[in-house]
Amino acid sequence: MSRWAPDARERLETAALDLFAENGYEETTVAQIAERAGLNRATFFRHFADKREVLFGGEDVLAGLFADGIRTAAPDATLTGCLQAAFAAAGAVMTPQQRVKAAQRVRVVAANTELQERGLLKHARIARSISAALRERGADELTARLGAEVGMLAFAVAVERWMKARNDEPFPVHAAAALSDLQVRVAELGSRSGLSA
Amino acid sequence: MSRWAPDARERLETAALDLFAENGYEETTVAQIAERAGLNRATFFRHFADKREVLFGGEDVLAGLFADGIRTAAPDATLTGCLQAAFAAAGAVMTPQQRVKAAQRVRVVAANTELQERGLLKHARIARSISAALRERGADELTARLGAEVGMLAFAVAVERWMKARNDEPFPVHAAAALSDLQVRVAELGSRSGLSA
Repeated sequence: MSRWAPDARERLETAALDLFAENGYEETTVAQIAERAGLNRATFFRHFADKREVLFGGEDVLAGLFADGIRTAAPDATLTGCLQAAFAAAGAVMTPQQRVKAAQRVRVVAANTELQERGLLKHARIARSISAALRERGADELTARLGAEVGMLAFAVAVERWMKARNDEPFPVHAAAALSDLQVRVAELGSRSGLSA
Repeated sequence: MSRWAPDARERLETAALDLFAENGYEETTVAQIAERAGLNRATFFRHFADKREVLFGGEDVLAGLFADGIRTAAPDATLTGCLQAAFAAAGAVMTPQQRVKAAQRVRVVAANTELQERGLLKHARIARSISAALRERGADELTARLGAEVGMLAFAVAVERWMKARNDEPFPVHAAAALSDLQVRVAELGSRSGLSA
């Protein structure tokens, strides 16, 4: 087994997702993942703190990209503009290859409460990263928290649509559409028209 | 120890929160909680599935109250009106007694990642309960999910303010104020003014 593999992280991810799908998440060991990837356990632990992190390591990368996108958005960007900048930055890692993995990941997580809990913790951390970046731009605390929640919902909707799409439309296109769909509905929060049919 | 205690659940909650504060969550056993409450382990397990549920059992009650409030809101209620009805219904369990416990609970949960994960899972379930109730009233899927996220944020902000308040202002007053503060900011999502100072 080669000790230095430039694509080790990706090979470990692919091996893990395949094994989780074949044998179940609980039943798969780190040793098996490393073996399938043609690497050793030490290499696994250089890339991931534990087995759960294979599924959620990308979330930390996303938190960083979102924050960078918001920080480098045009000085006169609106709240929505900042969220669009965050999604554009995230586009860098939302590749067609990741699109296939995302669908595998969703199936594994849906079958395990413990994994759902870890996923929610990561989700909450990304939201905090967005609200912190919005605060840095001068948003007050409530605006920053609202922006983070609406941004995370737009992101979740965009990921769902991206996974289901039959074409390779780039992720930022889905994200911009989801955000715009939510903006239309945001208006209803203050509208006077009733909700019932 | 009396086998039948009408206030068993509340006594167990109080005993657990006191022990968590004194000795730490991890170090406290179910047997110790039951003993402090003057009850036995079997009674504990009639009220709570496990030790974690002492901290989060109230969340299931809240999910039900929110959904009931939305279902019984006036037929012409707006999305915001439905959320206000949900918070008014929740007011039934947000008593001054619970206010003291809420602060204890927050301290215990903040010190333990596993508890934060369980809390987020409960939070996600309450959000789903809100969006399901909004869907029943005819809201489309995105509107229902947006209403649930904004509602949960308003609820979180209201709970924070309710815990910090120096008076016994009823919870629904805090909730209505938080929702109204968020509505003002919702307008910014579509505004053209920049975020930077």
